[in-house]
Amino acid sequence: MRLHGYFRSSAAWRVRIALHLKGVAVEHAFHHLRKGEQRAPDYLCLNPQGLLPSLETDDGAVLTQSLAICEWLDETIPAPPLLPGDALARARIRAVALAIACDIHPVQNLKVLAALRAIPLPEEAVTGWARRVIREGLEACEALVAGGEGPFLFGAAPTLADLCLVPQVGNARRFGAPIDDLPRLRAAVAACEAHPAFVAASPERQGDAE
Amino acid sequence: MRLHGYFRSSAAWRVRIALHLKGVAVEHAFHHLRKGEQRAPDYLCLNPQGLLPSLETDDGAVLTQSLAICEWLDETIPAPPLLPGDALARARIRAVALAIACDIHPVQNLKVLAALRAIPLPEEAVTGWARRVIREGLEACEALVAGGEGPFLFGAAPTLADLCLVPQVGNARRFGAPIDDLPRLRAAVAACEAHPAFVAASPERQGDAE
Repeated sequence: MRLHGYFRSSAAWRVRIALHLKGVAVEHAFHHLRKGEQRAPDYLCLNPQGLLPSLETDDGAVLTQSLAICEWLDETIPAPPLLPGDALARARIRAVALAIACDIHPVQNLKVLAALRAIPLPEEAVTGWARRVIREGLEACEALVAGGEGPFLFGAAPTLADLCLVPQVGNARRFGAPIDDLPRLRAAVAACEAHPAFVAASPERQGDAE
Repeated sequence: MRLHGYFRSSAAWRVRIALHLKGVAVEHAFHHLRKGEQRAPDYLCLNPQGLLPSLETDDGAVLTQSLAICEWLDETIPAPPLLPGDALARARIRAVALAIACDIHPVQNLKVLAALRAIPLPEEAVTGWARRVIREGLEACEALVAGGEGPFLFGAAPTLADLCLVPQVGNARRFGAPIDDLPRLRAAVAACEAHPAFVAASPERQGDAE
């Protein structure tokens, strides 16, 4: 399989974690987001959204959208599971994953921030926008997992929710949105950062890291 | 069960379609988005994100995030399916659903447009932002389903992708982003608009419609 990604893309990072959790080795194709390589004609043939990541399977199928790719990996390589068997538990985990993937990340990603800069909005206001969206979203995530067992967001093993959390907290750090006062998220991030799959998937370990 | 929604919320609309497809009758609790009722303390106890929809189950569980709710409905009430059995087909359908739910809707929703108006950005620029995001996103969706069979996005019956498409096209119309030249989307919307579950779930049929 071949993963099209970029070391700092949150969505590609999620899929890298899932691949490492499942023990799947893939080839990597790098597309430099800041240089706009994801809009190159060749890549648009693979992924008409012009977004990262895409996963080319061994059968030549191209999968897009990080959460769809993670669910596909979970369905085709069941162990270790990214989602448990119980439908209610699955719904709660997916809700946190989607709270990050729909309501935080898209509103603070490179594309939106570039559009704000083009208005033009001063850099301080752009950074403030990102910081506000991230902080408010992560506070809600803390509330969504309140009362549950750690150290990961949903217990003793990482799930789909944790693999969305870690890249989002990476963005939180870049934009100065601390999570020190959000104890469940802080504990989950610490557990993830000690887990070999998360370590191997981290941006600074990738072939295109700067 | 009890659905917390608002007639014009795209995310609540998706869940209403899923409920009607599954033949599940629910009680409705309305929260007026433009009056900010989704931020009322009582509702924040149910849904810490302060977003619509939420679904209270008969067991008293509260589910959030429209796509997580739809997947839960599909897992607990399998017929008719929102996703087929084949993993690759599921991944393609989820990718279109997520292309709308992550990459179009959050970047043009009420909250983001309100933030743009508060910059302050003139109304024409705010509307232009929404129109651009929607048009670009729907063009990519058209490409994602190119070559497939209709009339729905993925064949003869509606799937999770169609129930994301219809509310998004509702927004496209409101913001003046026509889809007449996107034949697969246009055909799918026509098929949906003739389907009783989609008709029953439409905003103008809801108890809080204005």
